[in-house]
Amino acid sequence: MVAFGGGHGLYASLSALRRVTGELTAVVTVADDGGSSGRLRRELGVLPPGDLRMALAALCGDDDWGQTWSKVVQHRFLSEGELHGHAVGNLLIVALWELLDDPVAGLDWVGRLLGAHGRVLPMASVPLDIEAEVELDGLVSVVRGQVACALTPGNVQAISLVPADPPACPEAVEAVREADWVVFGPGSWFTSVLPHLKVPQLAAALHGAAARRLVTLNLAPQPGETDGFSAEKHLQVLRDHAPGLTVDVVLADHRVVGERDELEKAADALGGRLVLADVAASDGSPRHDARRLASVLDEIFRGKR
Amino acid sequence: MVAFGGGHGLYASLSALRRVTGELTAVVTVADDGGSSGRLRRELGVLPPGDLRMALAALCGDDDWGQTWSKVVQHRFLSEGELHGHAVGNLLIVALWELLDDPVAGLDWVGRLLGAHGRVLPMASVPLDIEAEVELDGLVSVVRGQVACALTPGNVQAISLVPADPPACPEAVEAVREADWVVFGPGSWFTSVLPHLKVPQLAAALHGAAARRLVTLNLAPQPGETDGFSAEKHLQVLRDHAPGLTVDVVLADHRVVGERDELEKAADALGGRLVLADVAASDGSPRHDARRLASVLDEIFRGKR
Repeated sequence: MVAFGGGHGLYASLSALRRVTGELTAVVTVADDGGSSGRLRRELGVLPPGDLRMALAALCGDDDWGQTWSKVVQHRFLSEGELHGHAVGNLLIVALWELLDDPVAGLDWVGRLLGAHGRVLPMASVPLDIEAEVELDGLVSVVRGQVACALTPGNVQAISLVPADPPACPEAVEAVREADWVVFGPGSWFTSVLPHLKVPQLAAALHGAAARRLVTLNLAPQPGETDGFSAEKHLQVLRDHAPGLTVDVVLADHRVVGERDELEKAADALGGRLVLADVAASDGSPRHDARRLASVLDEIFRGKR
Repeated sequence: MVAFGGGHGLYASLSALRRVTGELTAVVTVADDGGSSGRLRRELGVLPPGDLRMALAALCGDDDWGQTWSKVVQHRFLSEGELHGHAVGNLLIVALWELLDDPVAGLDWVGRLLGAHGRVLPMASVPLDIEAEVELDGLVSVVRGQVACALTPGNVQAISLVPADPPACPEAVEAVREADWVVFGPGSWFTSVLPHLKVPQLAAALHGAAARRLVTLNLAPQPGETDGFSAEKHLQVLRDHAPGLTVDVVLADHRVVGERDELEKAADALGGRLVLADVAASDGSPRHDARRLASVLDEIFRGKR
């Protein structure tokens, strides 16, 4: 089982998937240029570690050991000084990278520390930038960087990567080749879910793999990125960014469905079928409930839904 | 077995003692105000973690797990930016302190991470400053802070603590009460070895404890602190800083002995006997050889020497 994504969306996906499978690999975007990750990337020339750290924390062991180290890894310093905002796990991951000179080995060590239920890999072996076409009032401008994408008013139309042909992480390519299922989303559509499809070796592996594909749609549009996007529009941009890619299942919560016909049509255009389910948190926030999502995913994977 | 000290000297002491006993507690100075520790102390208001980190690293497990995490903990970032010079273990210790709000619990977690052969405790529960009387050309001035002590030209005559009556770490007091042996030094005499004796509760515990006491002398005077000090002068200042304290054994390498009679007299004045042995590294540097030191300590502890 392979999960593509980044940030809070991937955290939600992994929190569900860890309940469903014993063999789980997260393939994580490495294009963040904001916050602690952005500072580390600029100061030390490393991959931005933040999304990787969050994915590892999502997979941490259930015992006191795993829970405590997960809290440590997620802990952020708050001060008026130079450490302010740095997440401890980011510093730990970067230290292991410097020591071992191998991004995957470093992440595996943090995984072992956390007693992680699965493996976390970067989608590419070099830090990336996202370049986005942003439309506002009919005018399209190009902005570079994940922070700029999020802050520039307007809707993102399309993204590309800089460099355009980054080396994929070989272990991630291998994981895709061997997967039974590849799961996309939920998450920031343009900056966490679609970037993977723009890494040529990863896209090629996906096209060539026997794995079935599932897309979990977001529960709400994301301000600054996908304002006003319907569920079907999300699928349409996915199709635009991965020409020829088919998916098997599109999973959506009832609440995101405007015109059910339109969404079914969009799923159909990708070669997949629509599964509607209750997967949102019961507090009304646009977050997935890990248990509900796990239960529905499990039924889908076992052919029961 | 309890070892008092700080910095590289305590590292050497622990590297030997871990070979000799299965029950080892290090009680570590918390007065550093320089480097990574000084910055963390000022930025986050915590105990300076550096000497504690080094002591933990000295006790790390022998397996791949312990060795790797020890390297991580000791790793320092090198950059032109805000992280430059920070040791990863310092950041990890401070994060655990912030999370658990308990210095001892935080150190115990890092000890577990490293598979440490022993426990590491701070000598006091609050950050301290060392105030030193420094003599140069017959003039005595008072300087505050460990860095200032090391950098001010001249010899240190005496030190005191600010605050003068800091709360001792209760677990350290307890460890002293239960110890068979308490070992002082080697290490920076005024800033790593003597400060413990100026913590009233710790000094009282020491006076009241049944533990025998051993002083391991340094292999060379320390520039800026003890320039030109003879071995017996080291013992004399120890006596000055802990009136009434007796020791059982003074361990010195052959090379530090000028007048053997004088050194024996100084040991005798403390109530102890002198043991001379080959405990220096064979490369001629003023470092103790862990194996040799361990072997001699073991003989002393077992009454064979």
